Amino acid sequence: MYRTHTCGELRINDVGKNVKLAGWIQRVRDLGAMTFVDLRDRYGITQLVVDEKSAESIREKTAKLGREFVIQAIGNVRERSSKNKNLPTGDVEVFLNEIVVLSVSKVPPFTIQDDTDGGDELRMKYRYLDLRRETVRKNLELRAEMAHATRVYLNQQNFIETETPVLIKSTPEGARDFVVPSRMNEGEFYALPQSPQTFKQLLMVAGFDRYYQIVKCFRDEDLRADRQPEFTQIDCEMSFVDQEDVLKTFEGLTRYLFKEVKNIEIEEFPWMPYSEAMEKYGSDKPDTRFEMLIHNLTEKVKGNNFAVFDSSEFIGAINTTGCAEYSRKQLDELTDWVKRPQIGAKGLVYVKYNDDGSFKSSVDKFYSQDDLKVWAEIVGAKPGDLILLLSGDKNHILTALGELRLEMGNRLGLRDKNIFKPLWVVDFPLLEWDDETKRFYAMHHPFTSPKKEDILLLDSDPGKVRANAYDLVINGVEIGGGSVRIFNKELQSKMFDLLGFTKEEAENQFGFLMSAFEFGAPPHAGIAFGFDRLVSMFAGLNSIRDVIAFPKNNAGRDVMIDSPSTISNEQLDELNLKVVIKGKK
Amino acid sequence: MYRTHTCGELRINDVGKNVKLAGWIQRVRDLGAMTFVDLRDRYGITQLVVDEKSAESIREKTAKLGREFVIQAIGNVRERSSKNKNLPTGDVEVFLNEIVVLSVSKVPPFTIQDDTDGGDELRMKYRYLDLRRETVRKNLELRAEMAHATRVYLNQQNFIETETPVLIKSTPEGARDFVVPSRMNEGEFYALPQSPQTFKQLLMVAGFDRYYQIVKCFRDEDLRADRQPEFTQIDCEMSFVDQEDVLKTFEGLTRYLFKEVKNIEIEEFPWMPYSEAMEKYGSDKPDTRFEMLIHNLTEKVKGNNFAVFDSSEFIGAINTTGCAEYSRKQLDELTDWVKRPQIGAKGLVYVKYNDDGSFKSSVDKFYSQDDLKVWAEIVGAKPGDLILLLSGDKNHILTALGELRLEMGNRLGLRDKNIFKPLWVVDFPLLEWDDETKRFYAMHHPFTSPKKEDILLLDSDPGKVRANAYDLVINGVEIGGGSVRIFNKELQSKMFDLLGFTKEEAENQFGFLMSAFEFGAPPHAGIAFGFDRLVSMFAGLNSIRDVIAFPKNNAGRDVMIDSPSTISNEQLDELNLKVVIKGKK
Repeated sequence: MYRTHTCGELRINDVGKNVKLAGWIQRVRDLGAMTFVDLRDRYGITQLVVDEKSAESIREKTAKLGREFVIQAIGNVRERSSKNKNLPTGDVEVFLNEIVVLSVSKVPPFTIQDDTDGGDELRMKYRYLDLRRETVRKNLELRAEMAHATRVYLNQQNFIETETPVLIKSTPEGARDFVVPSRMNEGEFYALPQSPQTFKQLLMVAGFDRYYQIVKCFRDEDLRADRQPEFTQIDCEMSFVDQEDVLKTFEGLTRYLFKEVKNIEIEEFPWMPYSEAMEKYGSDKPDTRFEMLIHNLTEKVKGNNFAVFDSSEFIGAINTTGCAEYSRKQLDELTDWVKRPQIGAKGLVYVKYNDDGSFKSSVDKFYSQDDLKVWAEIVGAKPGDLILLLSGDKNHILTALGELRLEMGNRLGLRDKNIFKPLWVVDFPLLEWDDETKRFYAMHHPFTSPKKEDILLLDSDPGKVRANAYDLVINGVEIGGGSVRIFNKELQSKMFDLLGFTKEEAENQFGFLMSAFEFGAPPHAGIAFGFDRLVSMFAGLNSIRDVIAFPKNNAGRDVMIDSPSTISNEQLDELNLKVVIKGKK
Repeated sequence: MYRTHTCGELRINDVGKNVKLAGWIQRVRDLGAMTFVDLRDRYGITQLVVDEKSAESIREKTAKLGREFVIQAIGNVRERSSKNKNLPTGDVEVFLNEIVVLSVSKVPPFTIQDDTDGGDELRMKYRYLDLRRETVRKNLELRAEMAHATRVYLNQQNFIETETPVLIKSTPEGARDFVVPSRMNEGEFYALPQSPQTFKQLLMVAGFDRYYQIVKCFRDEDLRADRQPEFTQIDCEMSFVDQEDVLKTFEGLTRYLFKEVKNIEIEEFPWMPYSEAMEKYGSDKPDTRFEMLIHNLTEKVKGNNFAVFDSSEFIGAINTTGCAEYSRKQLDELTDWVKRPQIGAKGLVYVKYNDDGSFKSSVDKFYSQDDLKVWAEIVGAKPGDLILLLSGDKNHILTALGELRLEMGNRLGLRDKNIFKPLWVVDFPLLEWDDETKRFYAMHHPFTSPKKEDILLLDSDPGKVRANAYDLVINGVEIGGGSVRIFNKELQSKMFDLLGFTKEEAENQFGFLMSAFEFGAPPHAGIAFGFDRLVSMFAGLNSIRDVIAFPKNNAGRDVMIDSPSTISNEQLDELNLKVVIKGKK
């Protein structure tokens, strides 16, 4: 062992001890007569000291130390004359008797401190240096702590952690698979799992009763800031349960994590039907840290000769507290904001509820003060508030108002990262119609069970069928989702029909699951949490990248190891593959 | 919830309670007046009963139940008249008031019991039924328990579990990689990790100090019974440690697992140099549950005109206790055994040490009774023992004697599965010469540090250099292995030279690691345990397949989901790939 103590360990009652420490040079302060060296490791920082009484050889070695050198420091613990109350080791220092330089360091390309001067790209290329920064390492320590707490909770609840295969079978439903050519099976491919869905269902058929796994999953999608080609799920499944049992169990997990990891008590999670979430929040993942609900003004505003409203399917409004004093310029800027292609509104109607009780709106030509007063009553506006209206196609406008609501929430400081408001969104539609391909898609996935009372609608009006599906949403972020599953061959087969599978395709891709349902499948249900997102939320971060040790960039590249890369022709030959890039021969 | 209790839960003090159970029908016994139904779930079996007082509807439903049907059973707990002491629930039964059939089952293709009638292939195809058998499920429960205990121990020791990427970069050193074509990076591939080796070393450079991960790894090798294309490692790395620290820590883990999981106290692990293991046991993974050591008789047996010995580089022997009474037929059979291509000996020389003190050997023509007595003394034989000698090339004969030793150990019942003898094999050679390719290969891997005292030999006699590498061996099985790592760019670069890498290849494949060593790398060392093997050893099994939920067969196929499989031309197109099978167009 190169050390007797870590750099975070020495205290006042260690004074007098001969110790060995090992770590990185954080800083050297040469004050002439004395030189102070801050030695850093994962556990903390300890001050080393050399003075005019020190041996010449030590003083020379100390003079040559640079940032990020790795040394072994041997010396005697003594009380500091000027203590540092901000450092757990701040009462003591180590008077050096010997220094062994274990590794020298070039000057790092950015500073190793919380407020580093390194840009994103540089820090990714030298990720091993970025990970030396305490903030970054703490995120990964948090991740490890949360994974362990999750396991402790689920083990207590009789869940069995079971590893499912990574080399599985490609199925075109859902996102794009990553595939893996098989050398031993010519011309054939494995796929990497987008989730262990079918395997966990088979474990239920196998009688495992309660399964979980903290598991890597893979999706070959075009990446956004919060997506990675490989990501981690807390993946779970339970038998002989209904929706309420699952929600209770995983509400329990979530509250346990908040309590254990952040010492926050969270109250019971409300349940909100999907339809309510859409109509009140314009989103299936409502941020309930603040109100500012969407109100439907359609009936009230039509028929006043304002063509924009009269020709709209839906007119909705939100009330922004205390914004009546927004300037012309601010309102113009907000109008531009809602017109951006991401939001796609045609324009913005505003109503200022002045402090004197009068109204000023962008539609004064069409509506009287009394009209506007009615609107104000509906949206719950008070003097000093600003009402914002959007109009158009209902689904689109709800979503646009939802986005506007979040934006105004940000501007008004209503989205505090230290407040956590979880809820369950329930009663999702089973199917989504896609106008382009003229077919239904499973909103959750093809294994989700329809609500019993809606099963008859499967034939008459499939789009109306609600699913036993649920999402855990915290602060506007979808943290997890799941469903009660189909466990009956006929119903599963009917679902594949509805989704446009031929009998042959269904059999070919999911025949093993439907076979399994013929040998006594229990009712079962499950859920998966996006572990990266959950950790980044606990860490107060916006991107999941910061809670992943070695993330990839938006092009799916690891710029540190320079991957992906070409492989040799011998490798391609063994795999019976040829690379054919379009436009090249 | 479909149940108030599990099938393993009810006891005598539950008598009188109204309960709901849910599970699978294990057995129905129709005794005319009464019908008994064994209901099974993961937690146990509970007897249900219907008699002539039961409602007609219940009796009818009960009559229709078949093996592996899934039911919900509602009834009243009562004391059994004839108790079953072998069953934790054997004091009670549930008198049925209602039965709900949740799923029917076809007759399963094999019986769901410990001594099933299903063959290997059938059980793999219906793995979800095989997993219903208690023995199989218990193996997977053991696996989960061991994974959790491992995490508890390593967390206590300040290790941070950190996920490393699965989509990495292909490197030709070592076994064959599985590769993953990248859609977003045309013509380029990721590789699946054979181990997280370089990433865990980078975590040490990053100051993580202690890392672990229970992690899937991948090798595209031709499979044997105990190999799988995907397997699981307990992967660890530590900074500021030397070999002894690593061995102490992971001896601690191993003993903790034996104590926690099997309640077995294991004494301190001996350390055995590689050279001793080879010379005494003919193996770098000696089974030390029994002695029967190899003895070198070369000097003693040469020069007696026995041409076979005289022309051999090495003559070695083992002594098999109490085997002097082996018949001619048994000895012939043993001779055939050592001549098999797997062993490859030219023949077998035996010496029987008769009970009367005389010797009878297959080389009596060349050696006197006195000669044989000397041999007997050297190998420690007593009257009643049988000495077996092999001769030839030293390395080959040591290995052959090692195999013979294990075979005789099996025959003599010396390899008890309930006895565990761990040891550390240390001081491995750094490099292995390969005659075919005329180059050195790293015995462990290219990141293993040579012993300091042998570093000078790197230039003069690389084959002699010993490594700071170590293996954990239990009962003749290599459970884990690791090494102290190189943490210096120049030495790492020299290793790549020795292994035949050009500067360009080394830079291209491992440049990121060598760069990292330039920014202050700490001394570090690590180890990885083969988790599948460790679990199968704890379970007393020979194959790792039995401790994997969904294993692949020897052709790398999952016969249940029928994978790998072909993918669509659209998928191939998107990946810029074409399948070219030799002999086909």
